[in-house]
Amino acid sequence: MAETRYVEELIDQEDDFDRWYVDVIRKAELADDTPVRGCKVIRPYGFGLWERMVARLDTQIKATGVENAYFPLFIPRSMLEREAEHVEGFAPEVAWVTRGGNADLEEPWAVRPTSEAIICPSYARWVQSYRDLPILINQWGNVVRWEERPRAFLRTLEFLWQEGHTCHASLDEADERARQMLEVYRRFFEEDLAIPVVPGIKTESEKFAGALRTYTVEAMMSGKYWALQAGTSHNLGDHFGRVFGIRFLDRDGERKYAFTTSWGLSHRAVGATVMVHGDDAGLKLPPAVAPVQVVVVPIWRKRDDMAEIEHAVDRILQRLAPVARTRVDWRDDRTAGYKFNEWELKGVPLRLEVGPRDVEVDQAVLVRRDTREKQAIPLANLGPTVEGLLDAIQGNLFANAKRMLDEHTVEVDTYTELVERIGVNAGWSLAHWCRAPACEARVKAETKATIRCIPRDLPAQPGRCVACGGLSERRVVIARAY
Amino acid sequence: MAETRYVEELIDQEDDFDRWYVDVIRKAELADDTPVRGCKVIRPYGFGLWERMVARLDTQIKATGVENAYFPLFIPRSMLEREAEHVEGFAPEVAWVTRGGNADLEEPWAVRPTSEAIICPSYARWVQSYRDLPILINQWGNVVRWEERPRAFLRTLEFLWQEGHTCHASLDEADERARQMLEVYRRFFEEDLAIPVVPGIKTESEKFAGALRTYTVEAMMSGKYWALQAGTSHNLGDHFGRVFGIRFLDRDGERKYAFTTSWGLSHRAVGATVMVHGDDAGLKLPPAVAPVQVVVVPIWRKRDDMAEIEHAVDRILQRLAPVARTRVDWRDDRTAGYKFNEWELKGVPLRLEVGPRDVEVDQAVLVRRDTREKQAIPLANLGPTVEGLLDAIQGNLFANAKRMLDEHTVEVDTYTELVERIGVNAGWSLAHWCRAPACEARVKAETKATIRCIPRDLPAQPGRCVACGGLSERRVVIARAY
Repeated sequence: MAETRYVEELIDQEDDFDRWYVDVIRKAELADDTPVRGCKVIRPYGFGLWERMVARLDTQIKATGVENAYFPLFIPRSMLEREAEHVEGFAPEVAWVTRGGNADLEEPWAVRPTSEAIICPSYARWVQSYRDLPILINQWGNVVRWEERPRAFLRTLEFLWQEGHTCHASLDEADERARQMLEVYRRFFEEDLAIPVVPGIKTESEKFAGALRTYTVEAMMSGKYWALQAGTSHNLGDHFGRVFGIRFLDRDGERKYAFTTSWGLSHRAVGATVMVHGDDAGLKLPPAVAPVQVVVVPIWRKRDDMAEIEHAVDRILQRLAPVARTRVDWRDDRTAGYKFNEWELKGVPLRLEVGPRDVEVDQAVLVRRDTREKQAIPLANLGPTVEGLLDAIQGNLFANAKRMLDEHTVEVDTYTELVERIGVNAGWSLAHWCRAPACEARVKAETKATIRCIPRDLPAQPGRCVACGGLSERRVVIARAY
Repeated sequence: MAETRYVEELIDQEDDFDRWYVDVIRKAELADDTPVRGCKVIRPYGFGLWERMVARLDTQIKATGVENAYFPLFIPRSMLEREAEHVEGFAPEVAWVTRGGNADLEEPWAVRPTSEAIICPSYARWVQSYRDLPILINQWGNVVRWEERPRAFLRTLEFLWQEGHTCHASLDEADERARQMLEVYRRFFEEDLAIPVVPGIKTESEKFAGALRTYTVEAMMSGKYWALQAGTSHNLGDHFGRVFGIRFLDRDGERKYAFTTSWGLSHRAVGATVMVHGDDAGLKLPPAVAPVQVVVVPIWRKRDDMAEIEHAVDRILQRLAPVARTRVDWRDDRTAGYKFNEWELKGVPLRLEVGPRDVEVDQAVLVRRDTREKQAIPLANLGPTVEGLLDAIQGNLFANAKRMLDEHTVEVDTYTELVERIGVNAGWSLAHWCRAPACEARVKAETKATIRCIPRDLPAQPGRCVACGGLSERRVVIARAY
């Protein structure tokens, strides 16, 4: 196998960002194709990244009082069809089980595309009185949505996610919960994945099928500066409460329908991490979620050096154990240069080289993946230095991504400029919109860009709709999206 | 709602153990029925138990060098049909997806009943040389086997499990791995779940469809002293390597087929924990996996007492935080007696009562769920006392289960005695068997009992087959099983 197979074959981002993405996913061994159309294998390195995301997000979700549970994979057709908008939105994407145990089913079962329609019937059983509320449940699992143009992590027929489902006595409380979980997502992206996001509300045409209101966090990918819907949180009003009969006896003695929310974040967070931070040499993983934070590459020329190197590596591992997830690359059929390239491709935040000369002077050489800065570190200082550098890298990745987002988000006041920006992948446009569905539809039809969200943190400011010139209260984010 | 609804309605184990199981699962809120035939909801309390099992077993699996990954839920029919014995074993239990995205599929997709047939094609892609071996991968996920007589956790149409799949250069190495993982399962059951198990080998007729050899750990449930197959580990030989073309260039320059193993443990471990340790008052959860290890029940008569009680509970929580998962039951619409019953039903290992008189003398009352022993503890000693008691409870649960297993496992030398024991649910029989399939089939047909395993740790000892009188090398375990 050619020594240089990894880096030589990785196309430059600016030549073809989409192909760079496909290549880096495969070469860094995050995921691979399978014989099942639209489905991917998540390989150990990619799954290790997802596992760390799951662990951190799970802790943050539980800190808000939510508990995990598990509901069935299958939803009988009649259940899925109860909420009219919901089924209209999801029916075209559903995989149907029609045979089981060598017999045809009387009623086909949907493989869950999302679980509202199977969770609400349970909530209807469990809720009798206001004392049973709120119900705060989350589920980690797989869902299936028929997908014609699969792309690893971003859009696959089967994908992994968490879906939270809560049930409340009032609309206000449901809305507060939906906004609270959006804030959990925002912090997760910004603090754990070093990805700045714009929180906001979806327009009527972009909201979740069956929702009263959908909140979203949108992230800017590098390359073409397209948007990625990174996580959504829905205030479902009492739509599902009514059709599934979730009723409770309130404090005032009246029987009322309950209000529900749902909120989901999927393994497209892995795809976002790849697309936001990566460069022509491969991935750059944020230390908070990197499966390997420090890779130690021992360098030896003669067998004689081995004992000393092994001893030095042992001491290094002892010092690093409390501060970093560390792996040693002892392979003897690869050169040091090959290993450097491979671990850069895999985006390990720090590389630590230890050769005979380093051992002599009791030091090691640390190389940052993000800046490629190289420094010799006395072994005695290794622990604190590595800890500090991992923090610095996490901060630097965020700062770079934030700079990209800021530089490529521009206020746009004319339709011509909007169309032009979208056409050349210049980035996101902050444009006025009069809230007319026709204007939104026109932009989409003529540019393929969509209103990503009405940003939460952008103050209202009167203006004229970029499409029709009508009155507008605030600017919205318009962009192409994955 | 009646104060006593929980305990009064729980039937005594000796009156109807199966109904006791169904009742306790529902009343302790471990699981609930759903509108999907054969599928259950795992409620937060049951899922919390499973989550702790997953965390502990996952750590133990990873300690053997295995990494997690994720393969597709669906298996195209032609893939599932490649290994003849495998498909013959699983085809009758498969759920088939025949429609997706509003169109009929050209080829039906099985919802995975187990993943050998979708994992092996990836291994065939990844393995080129002996340097690529071994592959050591585990997957946590859901599988579906069509089930006509569902029973929560033990036998449901969809269930949660882990399935490990490894790939090796030699048959010996594969067998060693299969035995190593069985030992991981044995320790997990004995040390984490306090359930003694008998490790052994399955007979040809009871082994996994497609395996060369199946290792198993069998546990004895209380009530009827039936067996539960608690975890299995398969040496698949090169059966799957050959049909899926997993080939590698060996050190000797020859292209060879690889050897694989698979091993799985499911959420029936939750069912086993319920059935082994529970009593007429409900669950008794082993502290190592109990979602709540200590429940604090504050007791107050007048509002005036509240401030002092709250202050005492704060101090208790501070002391317990480092040693135990603790929950406080502050509900004001339930009496203390009701709460005691409910937390006993839920099997929380330790209850801590704090009333005004306890506060006065700076103590609390600790009650063990397993022995119901009650003792007043000075708050200053609380941490170490609780830690010690949790260990003692874990040990006591194991000792009790081991005593049950030993008392109800008997050497049986005549067919009459065997039939009699099985007929009255007396327990397991250690009987000689000549290895003839006919004798095994006769026992099964006439008694519904099966050979659970050829025990690993029982020395060979010549004798006469209990069914035909033919020569036998060793005794096997014969029992009814769930």
